[in-house]
Amino acid sequence: MGMYIELDRQGEVPLYQQIRNFLKEQILGGSLPPGSRLPSTRSLARRLGVARITVQEAYDELISEGLLTAHVGRGTFVLGPDGRSPAPSSPPEPPWEVSPSRLSTRAILRDMLRMAASRDILSFAAGVPAPEFFPVEGLRRAINRVLRREGVSALQYDVPEGLLLLRQAISRHLSEMGIAAAPEAILNTSGTQQAIDLVARTLVEPGDAVVLESPTYIGAIDVFEARGAKILAVPVDAEGMRVEALKPLLVRYRPRLIYTIPTFHNPSGSSMSLERRRQLLALAREYAVPILEDDAYSELYYRESPPPPLRALDTSGHVIYLGGFSKTLFAGLRFGYMVVPEGLRERLTYAKQTADLHTSSLIQWAVLEFIRREGIHTHLRRIRAACLARRDAMARSMEVHFPPGVQWALPQGGLYFWVRLPREVTAFEVFFQGLARGVAVAPGPAFFPDRSGEEYIRLNFSLHPPERIEEGIRKLGETVGFLLERARRARLRRQRVPAALL
Amino acid sequence: MGMYIELDRQGEVPLYQQIRNFLKEQILGGSLPPGSRLPSTRSLARRLGVARITVQEAYDELISEGLLTAHVGRGTFVLGPDGRSPAPSSPPEPPWEVSPSRLSTRAILRDMLRMAASRDILSFAAGVPAPEFFPVEGLRRAINRVLRREGVSALQYDVPEGLLLLRQAISRHLSEMGIAAAPEAILNTSGTQQAIDLVARTLVEPGDAVVLESPTYIGAIDVFEARGAKILAVPVDAEGMRVEALKPLLVRYRPRLIYTIPTFHNPSGSSMSLERRRQLLALAREYAVPILEDDAYSELYYRESPPPPLRALDTSGHVIYLGGFSKTLFAGLRFGYMVVPEGLRERLTYAKQTADLHTSSLIQWAVLEFIRREGIHTHLRRIRAACLARRDAMARSMEVHFPPGVQWALPQGGLYFWVRLPREVTAFEVFFQGLARGVAVAPGPAFFPDRSGEEYIRLNFSLHPPERIEEGIRKLGETVGFLLERARRARLRRQRVPAALL
Repeated sequence: MGMYIELDRQGEVPLYQQIRNFLKEQILGGSLPPGSRLPSTRSLARRLGVARITVQEAYDELISEGLLTAHVGRGTFVLGPDGRSPAPSSPPEPPWEVSPSRLSTRAILRDMLRMAASRDILSFAAGVPAPEFFPVEGLRRAINRVLRREGVSALQYDVPEGLLLLRQAISRHLSEMGIAAAPEAILNTSGTQQAIDLVARTLVEPGDAVVLESPTYIGAIDVFEARGAKILAVPVDAEGMRVEALKPLLVRYRPRLIYTIPTFHNPSGSSMSLERRRQLLALAREYAVPILEDDAYSELYYRESPPPPLRALDTSGHVIYLGGFSKTLFAGLRFGYMVVPEGLRERLTYAKQTADLHTSSLIQWAVLEFIRREGIHTHLRRIRAACLARRDAMARSMEVHFPPGVQWALPQGGLYFWVRLPREVTAFEVFFQGLARGVAVAPGPAFFPDRSGEEYIRLNFSLHPPERIEEGIRKLGETVGFLLERARRARLRRQRVPAALL
Repeated sequence: MGMYIELDRQGEVPLYQQIRNFLKEQILGGSLPPGSRLPSTRSLARRLGVARITVQEAYDELISEGLLTAHVGRGTFVLGPDGRSPAPSSPPEPPWEVSPSRLSTRAILRDMLRMAASRDILSFAAGVPAPEFFPVEGLRRAINRVLRREGVSALQYDVPEGLLLLRQAISRHLSEMGIAAAPEAILNTSGTQQAIDLVARTLVEPGDAVVLESPTYIGAIDVFEARGAKILAVPVDAEGMRVEALKPLLVRYRPRLIYTIPTFHNPSGSSMSLERRRQLLALAREYAVPILEDDAYSELYYRESPPPPLRALDTSGHVIYLGGFSKTLFAGLRFGYMVVPEGLRERLTYAKQTADLHTSSLIQWAVLEFIRREGIHTHLRRIRAACLARRDAMARSMEVHFPPGVQWALPQGGLYFWVRLPREVTAFEVFFQGLARGVAVAPGPAFFPDRSGEEYIRLNFSLHPPERIEEGIRKLGETVGFLLERARRARLRRQRVPAALL
């Protein structure tokens, strides 16, 4: 059940009353028809980030008003207008929460991003390249050629590491980026998300420490949290991961892995300097810690090409490298690859097989044929030009429409502006108030392993054409302006309260 | 490095000498060129199922012969003819075995199945439908229509649970099978293997007990072993899982999950009777244990249609149902789906998102368009007829070519004969000796959680046309005949040894 309740934590109405009011509206308005089962108090409390007792108070009030009924072991149900319970009489499902729940406040953040994806919202929340530049026709031609030429063999089972011809093509592609990787070193995956997950399940046991950047890619936080890892967060600045903060963590916690996005970092947009790359590699070698290098964005540069990937500088087999085409060719195709040091190949291949046998054969053939016949360089040039124009459009719009106090740096690559809000305004307020105005952002805390970062929002600039960007940024500017004004008034109200009452 | 050494455990040559001889041949023959790194003694010992000291003895002998050199911390390398070590001088990779290895003898079994897939082997080892009946043209048309009509939206990111239109189509398809499942109850996956993995990571913590059938699907054993579960094995007979053996396990171990393939069980071919299905559901409810029903084969029936799926009989939300088209439409497309009880949906959706964000959008659109426009019923009828003809061809060939003492039952559905060997012959012997004659089988122990089952082999009958089936079965018959004769002679030799020496 998707229930999104905007709570005003600074307001005068108690939280339980706000929840009660919302539910009552839903019940009387018919959105929660008779017989609906409400979420458990525990689950709703977790989703809203409030105490369980707060939700229980709201439910109790609605029960005493005759709108809800509670059945021990079955849950809480909406009553019909006649006061009769249409709750099902079948026996209950098994107790699903048999093992410790993996859900967390991250699920709420994910739900928020999902709301942002609904049809009538102009969303800057996603991490998607410009879809109108996807080479759909080229892909269609590639698939036709493949199915005509290869027939059933393009649809048959494959080995877990993936289609050899494609791994050979990727090996050549990587050599252009300065990465020497034999086809046997390459493992094809169903996107970068899967690659991170495979590495986690292979190298990280519950309780093991791993180093993440702070902020970092949401999906990586999801993986390492789900794996039960202890997450050590290293801050990022304009030169990428602050490597000097890493060493004490290596000494003290002996982590199993360092996950980094060195180039056009998501969400901050910064790139690790060459100097820091060398320092990071030296530390990894000194403490024998593998590095997981997520290189999703390095081909999306807008001025000069970025420093070489860590994997190109690695002489000792400490880097596991992740690449793919989701941010440049086709987001939803779900294809990625990893370059794996020799000592780890057998175990990662086995993990891949356990996870999903192998990546779709048809998808692999399609990517191969596209790379071979259509080429990706022409396409990359086009998409870079389009993204650059959109980046500049967003920068101009922000200068015009954002109130003073909002800060950002111009990203030299990737897909995002990382925007710092004025002190009086939080990312969640901007999210919900923006939504009410039809525009969505990605709230900062989604990217921080410790859920901090309420002063940040991430804005994707590649998805919409310049006119839409302008429109959305104008609405966002209004949103932030409104919140600043509201905060100013609240401050004034507080000042008017007689001192004796404080 | 793929090294397959056939060891003769009953023979007179000591095991370490057999290993030494094999490696020496490889080195002198050039298959292991100078500079090659040999597997660690631990890893090779594990792969061969011998003691580590046995491998160490073989290596030591080759070192004293000047063929190998060992470097502490770097490994053992093949020397050049000049006795010089071309071993790399770069520093070593990090110690990858930082966490307990998940690899096991299962990896050897997997390697064996891989050998069976090499080009010049006539393999009955795979679990693949008849590929020449894959509707390649229909799929090609479907993809063309989709890409022309939907454009980039067929290539864009999707929600984790998958394309709603496809989930609606699956909901209708399931209702024809007697399963009432709303689209919201359906979660699309990248094949059934992934579905099993998602359930394991959601419901099973390391150390938790799970019930598997014995024998069962290899990929399920892989998943639950990798998850660190305690596997409880319940035997299967001609009426499927022996449910009466289940109850004491439920009482004693309180398992988190019961995994079953009730219909045309892989590998045994048997189907659970209606009576047993009801008993299993009653037990699941009584002990509040969820059932994971893997229904990969029920649409491949050759006489009458099988009893209804457990999910169709379940009135209390205890069954998680897995379906897909890998065994009927396209094996390598990697699409499957699961029907999820309400209380588990949120967590499974989150697990899917963590694993790979979502299943390839293009694959989902292609499956949808194929189901909608081409239909699957005509296709299912064709593939059933083809598989039936092949089943009968294999049965006839086995009657002609197999020596007495080999036993099997005629499967009423699915893709396999489950063959019991004469007492004197083991599955591994048949595997290696068959390979030498160009024909491969799946050895029984691959399917048993406890690696028993050396008296069984599994033969797939759907992949090859009848003439090839005849040829392969003839070779297999020769193989078994040869092994029986060898066993007879060994027995005679033993009888000839003077009693004084015994």
